[in-house]
Amino acid sequence: MATVAASRIGMVLPRPVTFVTGNAKKLEEVRAILGNSVPFRSLKLDLPELQGEPEDISKEKARLAAIQVNGPVLVEDTCLCFNALKGLPGPYIKWFLEKIGHEGLNNLLLAYEDKSAYASCIFSFSLGPEAEPITFVGNTPGKIVLPRGPNDFGWDPIFQPDGYDQTYAEMSKEEKNKISHRYRALALVKSHFAEANYTYQIQD
Amino acid sequence: MATVAASRIGMVLPRPVTFVTGNAKKLEEVRAILGNSVPFRSLKLDLPELQGEPEDISKEKARLAAIQVNGPVLVEDTCLCFNALKGLPGPYIKWFLEKIGHEGLNNLLLAYEDKSAYASCIFSFSLGPEAEPITFVGNTPGKIVLPRGPNDFGWDPIFQPDGYDQTYAEMSKEEKNKISHRYRALALVKSHFAEANYTYQIQD
Repeated sequence: MATVAASRIGMVLPRPVTFVTGNAKKLEEVRAILGNSVPFRSLKLDLPELQGEPEDISKEKARLAAIQVNGPVLVEDTCLCFNALKGLPGPYIKWFLEKIGHEGLNNLLLAYEDKSAYASCIFSFSLGPEAEPITFVGNTPGKIVLPRGPNDFGWDPIFQPDGYDQTYAEMSKEEKNKISHRYRALALVKSHFAEANYTYQIQD
Repeated sequence: MATVAASRIGMVLPRPVTFVTGNAKKLEEVRAILGNSVPFRSLKLDLPELQGEPEDISKEKARLAAIQVNGPVLVEDTCLCFNALKGLPGPYIKWFLEKIGHEGLNNLLLAYEDKSAYASCIFSFSLGPEAEPITFVGNTPGKIVLPRGPNDFGWDPIFQPDGYDQTYAEMSKEEKNKISHRYRALALVKSHFAEANYTYQIQD
Protein backbone atom coordinates (compact mmCIF):
# COMPACT_ATOMS: atom_id res chain seq x y z
CA MET A 1 0.00 0.00 0.00
CA ALA A 2 2.83 2.39 0.86
CA THR A 3 4.41 1.80 -2.57
CA VAL A 4 1.17 2.54 -4.37
CA ALA A 5 0.75 5.75 -2.38
CA ALA A 6 4.33 6.78 -3.14
CA SER A 7 3.98 6.16 -6.84
CA ARG A 8 0.92 8.44 -6.84
CA ILE A 9 3.00 11.43 -5.80
CA GLY A 10 4.63 11.71 -9.23
CA MET A 11 7.34 13.99 -10.57
CA VAL A 12 7.94 17.29 -8.80
CA LEU A 13 7.96 20.27 -11.17
CA PRO A 14 10.09 23.26 -10.19
CA ARG A 15 7.20 25.65 -10.90
CA PRO A 16 3.66 25.72 -12.32
CA VAL A 17 3.19 24.88 -16.00
CA THR A 18 3.25 27.90 -18.32
CA PHE A 19 0.70 27.69 -21.13
CA VAL A 20 2.12 29.80 -23.91
CA THR A 21 -0.71 31.86 -25.42
CA GLY A 22 -1.73 35.45 -25.83
CA ASN A 23 -5.33 34.32 -26.17
CA ALA A 24 -7.40 34.57 -22.95
CA LYS A 25 -10.16 32.38 -24.45
CA LYS A 26 -7.77 29.53 -25.15
CA LEU A 27 -6.45 29.69 -21.61
CA GLU A 28 -10.00 29.56 -20.27
CA GLU A 29 -10.72 26.50 -22.44
CA VAL A 30 -7.56 24.77 -21.22
CA ARG A 31 -8.41 25.53 -17.61
CA ALA A 32 -12.01 24.32 -18.05
CA ILE A 33 -10.89 20.99 -19.46
CA LEU A 34 -7.82 20.35 -17.33
CA GLY A 35 -9.39 21.52 -14.07
CA ASN A 36 -7.18 22.20 -11.09
CA SER A 37 -5.09 19.05 -11.27
CA VAL A 38 -2.08 21.06 -12.39
CA PRO A 39 -1.56 24.76 -11.63
CA PHE A 40 -1.30 26.82 -14.81
CA ARG A 41 -0.24 30.28 -15.63
CA SER A 42 -0.39 31.79 -19.09
CA LEU A 43 2.25 33.85 -20.83
CA LYS A 44 2.44 35.46 -24.25
CA LEU A 45 5.85 34.74 -25.72
CA ASP A 46 7.24 35.99 -28.99
CA LEU A 47 8.18 32.62 -30.48
CA PRO A 48 9.13 32.02 -34.11
CA GLU A 49 6.55 30.18 -36.22
CA LEU A 50 8.39 27.40 -37.96
CA GLN A 51 7.88 25.49 -41.19
CA GLY A 52 7.84 21.69 -41.30
CA GLU A 53 5.75 18.73 -40.23
CA PRO A 54 3.09 19.74 -37.65
CA GLU A 55 4.50 17.63 -34.80
CA ASP A 56 8.04 18.84 -35.42
CA ILE A 57 6.87 22.46 -35.47
CA SER A 58 5.08 21.97 -32.16
CA LYS A 59 7.99 20.18 -30.47
CA GLU A 60 10.47 22.83 -31.53
CA LYS A 61 8.14 25.56 -30.26
CA ALA A 62 7.95 23.77 -26.87
CA ARG A 63 11.75 23.51 -26.78
CA LEU A 64 12.19 27.21 -27.44
CA ALA A 65 9.47 28.14 -24.94
CA ALA A 66 10.99 25.93 -22.22
CA ILE A 67 14.34 27.67 -22.69
CA GLN A 68 12.74 31.12 -22.44
CA VAL A 69 10.58 30.21 -19.46
CA ASN A 70 13.24 27.99 -17.87
CA GLY A 71 10.54 25.63 -16.63
CA PRO A 72 7.64 23.43 -17.74
CA VAL A 73 5.61 24.72 -20.70
CA LEU A 74 2.61 23.74 -22.78
CA VAL A 75 2.23 25.07 -26.33
CA GLU A 76 -0.59 24.69 -28.85
CA ASP A 77 -0.87 24.73 -32.65
CA THR A 78 -3.74 24.23 -35.05
CA CYS A 79 -3.74 22.84 -38.60
CA LEU A 80 -6.38 22.39 -41.26
CA CYS A 81 -5.33 19.51 -43.50
CA PHE A 82 -6.90 18.73 -46.90
CA ASN A 83 -6.55 15.03 -47.77
CA ALA A 84 -6.42 15.69 -51.53
CA LEU A 85 -3.47 17.99 -50.86
CA LYS A 86 -1.69 15.39 -48.69
CA GLY A 87 -2.30 17.33 -45.50
CA LEU A 88 -1.67 20.84 -46.80
CA PRO A 89 -2.28 23.76 -46.18
CA GLY A 90 -1.86 22.15 -42.71
CA PRO A 91 0.32 24.35 -40.51
CA TYR A 92 0.18 27.16 -43.09
CA ILE A 93 -3.63 27.46 -42.96
CA LYS A 94 -3.39 30.84 -41.20
CA TRP A 95 -1.64 32.42 -44.19
CA PHE A 96 -3.99 30.82 -46.71
CA LEU A 97 -7.04 31.99 -44.79
CA GLU A 98 -5.60 35.49 -44.53
CA LYS A 99 -4.66 35.75 -48.20
CA ILE A 100 -7.35 33.85 -50.11
CA GLY A 101 -10.24 33.51 -47.64
CA HIS A 102 -12.97 30.89 -47.43
CA GLU A 103 -13.73 30.93 -51.15
CA GLY A 104 -10.06 30.61 -52.04
CA LEU A 105 -9.71 27.64 -49.71
CA ASN A 106 -12.66 25.93 -51.41
CA ASN A 107 -11.09 26.73 -54.80
CA LEU A 108 -7.92 24.85 -53.89
CA LEU A 109 -10.00 21.66 -54.03
CA LEU A 110 -11.87 22.36 -57.27
CA ALA A 111 -9.68 19.85 -59.13
CA TYR A 112 -10.60 17.08 -56.68
CA GLU A 113 -13.73 15.13 -55.88
CA ASP A 114 -12.29 14.40 -52.46
CA LYS A 115 -13.21 17.37 -50.25
CA SER A 116 -12.31 15.52 -47.05
CA ALA A 117 -10.12 17.21 -44.49
CA TYR A 118 -9.21 17.05 -40.85
CA ALA A 119 -8.82 19.69 -38.21
CA SER A 120 -5.79 19.00 -36.09
CA CYS A 121 -4.74 20.40 -32.75
CA ILE A 122 -1.31 19.68 -31.33
CA PHE A 123 -0.18 20.35 -27.80
CA SER A 124 3.41 19.85 -26.79
CA PHE A 125 4.46 19.66 -23.17
CA SER A 126 8.04 20.11 -22.05
CA LEU A 127 9.27 19.65 -18.50
CA GLY A 128 12.05 22.20 -19.02
CA PRO A 129 14.99 23.38 -21.15
CA GLU A 130 16.72 19.99 -21.23
CA ALA A 131 13.64 17.80 -21.71
CA GLU A 132 12.32 16.18 -24.90
CA PRO A 133 8.76 17.51 -25.43
CA ILE A 134 5.78 15.12 -25.43
CA THR A 135 3.19 15.68 -28.13
CA PHE A 136 -0.61 15.22 -28.00
CA VAL A 137 -2.53 15.28 -31.27
CA GLY A 138 -6.30 15.62 -31.54
CA ASN A 139 -7.84 15.18 -35.00
CA THR A 140 -11.44 15.76 -36.08
CA PRO A 141 -12.30 14.43 -39.54
CA GLY A 142 -14.71 16.32 -41.79
CA LYS A 143 -14.97 18.05 -45.14
CA ILE A 144 -14.45 21.47 -46.71
CA VAL A 145 -17.70 23.19 -47.70
CA LEU A 146 -18.80 26.63 -48.87
CA PRO A 147 -18.95 28.96 -45.87
CA ARG A 148 -22.01 28.64 -43.60
CA GLY A 149 -22.60 30.22 -40.19
CA PRO A 150 -21.14 33.19 -38.32
CA ASN A 151 -17.85 34.43 -39.72
CA ASP A 152 -16.10 35.34 -36.50
CA PHE A 153 -13.68 32.50 -35.94
CA GLY A 154 -11.13 31.59 -38.58
CA TRP A 155 -12.02 28.72 -40.90
CA ASP A 156 -14.92 27.41 -38.77
CA PRO A 157 -17.52 28.30 -41.46
CA ILE A 158 -15.95 25.99 -44.09
CA PHE A 159 -15.27 22.93 -41.91
CA GLN A 160 -18.12 20.43 -41.47
CA PRO A 161 -17.19 17.58 -39.12
CA ASP A 162 -18.14 14.03 -40.16
CA GLY A 163 -21.55 12.93 -38.86
CA TYR A 164 -22.89 16.49 -38.61
CA ASP A 165 -24.99 18.62 -40.96
CA GLN A 166 -23.53 21.79 -39.53
CA THR A 167 -20.19 23.50 -39.92
CA TYR A 168 -18.10 24.27 -36.84
CA ALA A 169 -19.39 27.85 -37.16
CA GLU A 170 -23.04 26.75 -37.13
CA MET A 171 -22.68 24.50 -34.09
CA SER A 172 -23.22 25.70 -30.54
CA LYS A 173 -20.02 26.18 -28.60
CA GLU A 174 -20.96 23.29 -26.28
CA GLU A 175 -21.62 20.94 -29.17
CA LYS A 176 -18.43 21.92 -31.01
CA ASN A 177 -16.35 21.50 -27.87
CA LYS A 178 -17.57 17.92 -27.48
CA ILE A 179 -15.95 16.84 -30.75
CA SER A 180 -13.43 19.51 -31.61
CA HIS A 181 -9.79 18.82 -32.46
CA ARG A 182 -8.76 21.03 -29.53
CA TYR A 183 -10.99 19.11 -27.12
CA ARG A 184 -9.58 15.81 -28.32
CA ALA A 185 -5.98 16.96 -27.92
CA LEU A 186 -6.71 18.41 -24.48
CA ALA A 187 -8.30 15.13 -23.41
CA LEU A 188 -4.96 13.46 -24.12
CA VAL A 189 -3.11 16.19 -22.22
CA LYS A 190 -5.49 15.65 -19.30
CA SER A 191 -4.93 11.87 -19.27
CA HIS A 192 -1.21 12.44 -19.28
CA PHE A 193 -1.37 14.82 -16.34
CA ALA A 194 -3.70 12.49 -14.44
CA GLU A 195 -1.33 9.58 -14.98
CA ALA A 196 1.93 11.46 -14.32
CA ASN A 197 0.42 13.15 -11.29
CA TYR A 198 2.92 16.00 -11.33
CA THR A 199 3.27 18.07 -8.20
CA TYR A 200 5.20 21.29 -7.99
CA GLN A 201 7.28 23.25 -5.54
CA ILE A 202 5.60 26.41 -4.35
CA GLN A 203 7.97 29.33 -4.75
CA ASP A 204 7.55 32.40 -2.61
CA MET B 1 40.78 63.77 -54.80
CA ALA B 2 41.94 62.40 -51.44
CA THR B 3 38.37 62.40 -50.13
CA VAL B 4 37.11 60.45 -53.12
CA ALA B 5 39.86 57.91 -52.69
CA ALA B 6 39.11 57.57 -48.97
CA SER B 7 35.39 57.04 -49.55
CA ARG B 8 36.29 54.20 -51.92
CA ILE B 9 37.88 52.20 -49.11
CA GLY B 10 34.52 51.42 -47.54
CA MET B 11 33.56 49.65 -44.34
CA VAL B 12 36.00 47.17 -42.89
CA LEU B 13 34.44 43.77 -42.15
CA PRO B 14 35.95 41.73 -39.31
CA ARG B 15 36.09 38.65 -41.50
CA PRO B 16 35.04 37.33 -44.94
CA VAL B 17 31.32 37.06 -45.68
CA THR B 18 29.80 33.66 -44.89
CA PHE B 19 27.27 32.50 -47.48
CA VAL B 20 24.95 30.15 -45.63
CA THR B 21 24.26 27.16 -47.84
CA GLY B 22 24.82 23.44 -47.93
CA ASN B 23 24.58 23.53 -51.72
CA ALA B 24 27.91 23.65 -53.56
CA LYS B 25 26.17 24.64 -56.83
CA LYS B 26 24.59 27.69 -55.28
CA LEU B 27 27.93 28.78 -53.87
CA GLU B 28 29.50 28.38 -57.31
CA GLU B 29 26.73 30.50 -58.84
CA VAL B 30 27.19 33.20 -56.21
CA ARG B 31 30.95 33.22 -56.77
CA ALA B 32 30.54 33.36 -60.54
CA ILE B 33 28.26 36.37 -60.35
CA LEU B 34 29.89 38.26 -57.51
CA GLY B 35 33.46 37.64 -58.65
CA ASN B 36 36.32 38.31 -56.30
CA SER B 37 35.21 41.72 -55.09
CA VAL B 38 34.34 40.27 -51.67
CA PRO B 39 35.91 37.14 -50.20
CA PHE B 40 33.32 34.46 -49.48
CA ARG B 41 33.28 31.27 -47.59
CA SER B 42 30.32 28.93 -47.42
CA LEU B 43 28.91 27.20 -44.38
CA LYS B 44 25.99 24.85 -43.86
CA LEU B 45 24.09 25.98 -40.77
CA ASP B 46 21.11 24.30 -39.18
CA LEU B 47 18.78 27.31 -39.16
CA PRO B 48 15.04 27.15 -38.47
CA GLU B 49 12.78 27.69 -41.49
CA LEU B 50 10.28 30.30 -40.48
CA GLN B 51 6.73 31.11 -41.53
CA GLY B 52 5.70 34.63 -42.55
CA GLU B 53 6.20 37.16 -45.32
CA PRO B 54 9.16 36.25 -47.56
CA GLU B 55 11.26 39.31 -46.69
CA ASP B 56 10.65 38.87 -42.97
CA ILE B 57 11.61 35.19 -43.16
CA SER B 58 14.84 36.06 -44.95
CA LYS B 59 15.78 38.89 -42.56
CA GLU B 60 15.18 36.73 -39.52
CA LYS B 61 17.28 33.96 -41.03
CA ALA B 62 20.12 36.44 -41.60
CA ARG B 63 19.82 37.66 -38.00
CA LEU B 64 20.04 34.12 -36.62
CA ALA B 65 22.92 33.23 -38.95
CA ALA B 66 24.87 36.38 -38.00
CA ILE B 67 24.55 35.44 -34.33
CA GLN B 68 25.77 31.89 -34.99
CA VAL B 69 28.64 32.97 -37.23
CA ASN B 70 29.40 36.12 -35.21
CA GLY B 71 30.23 37.99 -38.39
CA PRO B 72 28.89 39.06 -41.79
CA VAL B 73 26.52 36.59 -43.48
CA LEU B 74 24.54 36.23 -46.67
CA VAL B 75 21.46 33.97 -46.77
CA GLU B 76 19.19 32.99 -49.66
CA ASP B 77 15.56 31.92 -50.01
CA THR B 78 13.35 31.06 -52.94
CA CYS B 79 9.60 31.44 -53.39
CA LEU B 80 7.14 30.52 -56.13
CA CYS B 81 4.19 32.88 -55.90
CA PHE B 82 0.86 32.35 -57.69
CA ASN B 83 -0.92 35.66 -58.33
CA ALA B 84 -4.41 34.10 -58.12
CA LEU B 85 -3.44 32.84 -54.65
CA LYS B 86 -2.11 36.28 -53.58
CA GLY B 87 1.49 35.14 -53.58
CA LEU B 88 1.02 31.67 -52.10
CA PRO B 89 2.39 28.97 -51.90
CA GLY B 90 5.29 31.48 -51.85
CA PRO B 91 7.78 30.53 -49.12
CA TYR B 92 5.98 27.18 -48.59
CA ILE B 93 6.52 26.00 -52.19
CA LYS B 94 9.02 23.38 -51.04
CA TRP B 95 6.37 21.54 -49.00
CA PHE B 96 3.74 21.81 -51.75
CA LEU B 97 6.16 20.47 -54.36
CA GLU B 98 7.16 17.62 -52.05
CA LYS B 99 3.59 16.65 -51.15
CA ILE B 100 1.51 17.29 -54.28
CA GLY B 101 4.08 17.54 -57.10
CA HIS B 102 3.87 19.37 -60.43
CA GLU B 103 0.36 18.17 -61.23
CA GLY B 104 -0.91 19.15 -57.79
CA LEU B 105 0.59 22.61 -58.16
CA ASN B 106 -1.22 23.03 -61.48
CA ASN B 107 -4.43 21.79 -59.84
CA LEU B 108 -4.29 24.57 -57.23
CA LEU B 109 -5.03 27.01 -60.07
CA LEU B 110 -7.82 25.05 -61.77
CA ALA B 111 -10.41 27.46 -60.36
CA TYR B 112 -8.64 30.45 -61.90
CA GLU B 113 -8.08 31.71 -65.43
CA ASP B 114 -5.11 33.63 -64.14
CA LYS B 115 -2.15 31.22 -64.21
CA SER B 116 0.40 33.99 -63.76
CA ALA B 117 3.09 33.61 -61.13
CA TYR B 118 6.50 34.93 -60.22
CA ALA B 119 9.65 33.25 -59.09
CA SER B 120 11.25 35.18 -56.31
CA CYS B 121 14.73 35.00 -54.85
CA ILE B 122 15.64 36.86 -51.70
CA PHE B 123 19.11 37.42 -50.36
CA SER B 124 19.65 39.03 -46.98
CA PHE B 125 22.99 40.40 -45.95
CA SER B 126 23.87 41.14 -42.35
CA LEU B 127 27.09 42.80 -41.20
CA GLY B 128 26.94 40.95 -37.87
CA PRO B 129 24.94 39.99 -34.78
CA GLU B 130 23.88 43.57 -33.98
CA ALA B 131 23.14 44.73 -37.53
CA GLU B 132 19.79 45.10 -39.31
CA PRO B 133 19.91 42.87 -42.41
CA ILE B 134 19.59 44.38 -45.88
CA THR B 135 17.35 42.52 -48.31
CA PHE B 136 17.69 42.08 -52.08
CA VAL B 137 14.71 40.70 -54.01
CA GLY B 138 14.86 39.40 -57.57
CA ASN B 139 11.56 38.53 -59.25
CA THR B 140 10.97 36.83 -62.60
CA PRO B 141 7.37 36.95 -63.85
CA GLY B 142 5.88 34.02 -65.74
CA LYS B 143 3.10 31.47 -65.62
CA ILE B 144 2.37 28.01 -64.28
CA VAL B 145 2.14 25.33 -66.98
CA LEU B 146 1.93 21.56 -67.18
CA PRO B 147 5.43 20.13 -66.67
CA ARG B 148 7.80 20.27 -69.66
CA GLY B 149 11.53 19.54 -69.72
CA PRO B 150 13.94 17.61 -67.51
CA ASN B 151 12.62 16.88 -64.05
CA ASP B 152 15.79 17.27 -62.05
CA PHE B 153 15.42 20.66 -60.43
CA GLY B 154 12.41 21.46 -58.27
CA TRP B 155 9.55 23.32 -59.93
CA ASP B 156 11.55 24.40 -63.01
CA PRO B 157 9.39 22.22 -65.36
CA ILE B 158 6.15 24.09 -64.50
CA PHE B 159 7.44 27.68 -64.58
CA GLN B 160 7.51 29.43 -67.96
CA PRO B 161 8.98 32.93 -67.75
CA ASP B 162 7.21 35.74 -69.61
CA GLY B 163 8.49 36.27 -73.16
CA TYR B 164 9.72 32.70 -73.53
CA ASP B 165 8.16 29.59 -75.06
CA GLN B 166 10.21 27.35 -72.81
CA THR B 167 9.94 26.46 -69.15
CA TYR B 168 12.92 27.06 -66.86
CA ALA B 169 13.61 23.32 -67.18
CA GLU B 170 13.68 23.47 -70.99
CA MET B 171 16.04 26.47 -71.16
CA SER B 172 19.80 26.12 -71.27
CA LYS B 173 21.53 26.96 -68.02
CA GLU B 174 23.13 30.03 -69.62
CA GLU B 175 19.82 31.29 -70.93
CA LYS B 176 18.01 30.69 -67.65
CA ASN B 177 20.75 32.40 -65.67
CA LYS B 178 20.33 35.56 -67.76
CA ILE B 179 16.79 36.11 -66.56
CA SER B 180 16.39 34.00 -63.44
CA HIS B 181 15.07 35.32 -60.14
CA ARG B 182 18.36 34.27 -58.51
CA TYR B 183 20.40 36.13 -61.09
CA ARG B 184 18.32 39.26 -60.59
CA ALA B 185 18.66 39.15 -56.84
CA LEU B 186 22.40 38.52 -57.08
CA ALA B 187 22.79 41.49 -59.45
CA LEU B 188 21.38 43.66 -56.65
CA VAL B 189 23.72 42.05 -54.13
CA LYS B 190 26.62 42.73 -56.50
CA SER B 191 25.66 46.40 -56.93
CA HIS B 192 25.47 46.78 -53.19
CA PHE B 193 28.90 45.27 -52.65
CA ALA B 194 30.39 47.38 -55.47
CA GLU B 195 28.93 50.53 -53.94
CA ALA B 196 29.75 49.72 -50.31
CA ASN B 197 33.23 48.54 -51.28
CA TYR B 198 33.68 46.50 -48.11
CA THR B 199 37.16 45.44 -47.18
CA TYR B 200 38.00 42.96 -44.47
CA GLN B 201 40.65 42.26 -41.92
CA ILE B 202 42.75 39.23 -42.69
CA GLN B 203 42.86 36.95 -39.69
CA ASP B 204 45.67 34.50 -39.25
